[in-house]
Amino acid sequence: MNELQNGSRDETAIRALVEDWAGAVRNRDFDAILRHHDTDILMFDVPPPFQSNGIDAYRNTWDLFFSCAPDPAVFDIKEMSIVAGTDVGFVIAAMQCVGGAPEREELNFRLTIGLRKIDGQWTVVHEHHSVPAL
Amino acid sequence: MNELQNGSRDETAIRALVEDWAGAVRNRDFDAILRHHDTDILMFDVPPPFQSNGIDAYRNTWDLFFSCAPDPAVFDIKEMSIVAGTDVGFVIAAMQCVGGAPEREELNFRLTIGLRKIDGQWTVVHEHHSVPAL
Repeated sequence: MNELQNGSRDETAIRALVEDWAGAVRNRDFDAILRHHDTDILMFDVPPPFQSNGIDAYRNTWDLFFSCAPDPAVFDIKEMSIVAGTDVGFVIAAMQCVGGAPEREELNFRLTIGLRKIDGQWTVVHEHHSVPAL
Repeated sequence: MNELQNGSRDETAIRALVEDWAGAVRNRDFDAILRHHDTDILMFDVPPPFQSNGIDAYRNTWDLFFSCAPDPAVFDIKEMSIVAGTDVGFVIAAMQCVGGAPEREELNFRLTIGLRKIDGQWTVVHEHHSVPAL
């Protein structure tokens, strides 16, 4: 398999991983949200804290998110670009979520995801979610 | 050269690139700030806009930064971790800058940098700077 085909295959795998993860968020499915995340993930989220280290702290950020989201949650990928290397990759995305009733306010946010290929499986080791500061 | 040595060499190269870039920011040296940045860089910055596409828009974000920074600027890497693959890498950092006189208020912010190795040279294709939303 030549380099282009390999690259395309990795990009396709990462795209599917991110789309599945976003779908899992919409369904509040914690097992699926965490399925391809590393134990030592480092998370920069939209709300405080400054950073969350490790998978347990990462899981807690979703508890906070779901506490102020409709059910099912809105968590849409508006644009996504993927840089897939041989063993490291990252994803740059424009995202949209929606707050809880009654306002259901839309929030557009930026997302960068960092991945490593570990034992042949793309694995999320970093997420950075943010909005521009006011 | 075995894989470990290659990995270590790439990590060292990326670390030097980021440290040189941060030093260039402190010195307001635009040529050095842009030296290893891709024409198509996609920037998510602390202040609006939501995103800045391309090297000219990226350069403009520094004009804004310098307009409210002391001279020399404060732009310190407090912590940095590097994931260096064969051809793609990323950097996760905790940063600190300082606003202009008279307050000189400290601002801690998060930074993710995405890189590709292009013709043997690590090149920045993405930066994501943010603070937690209030």
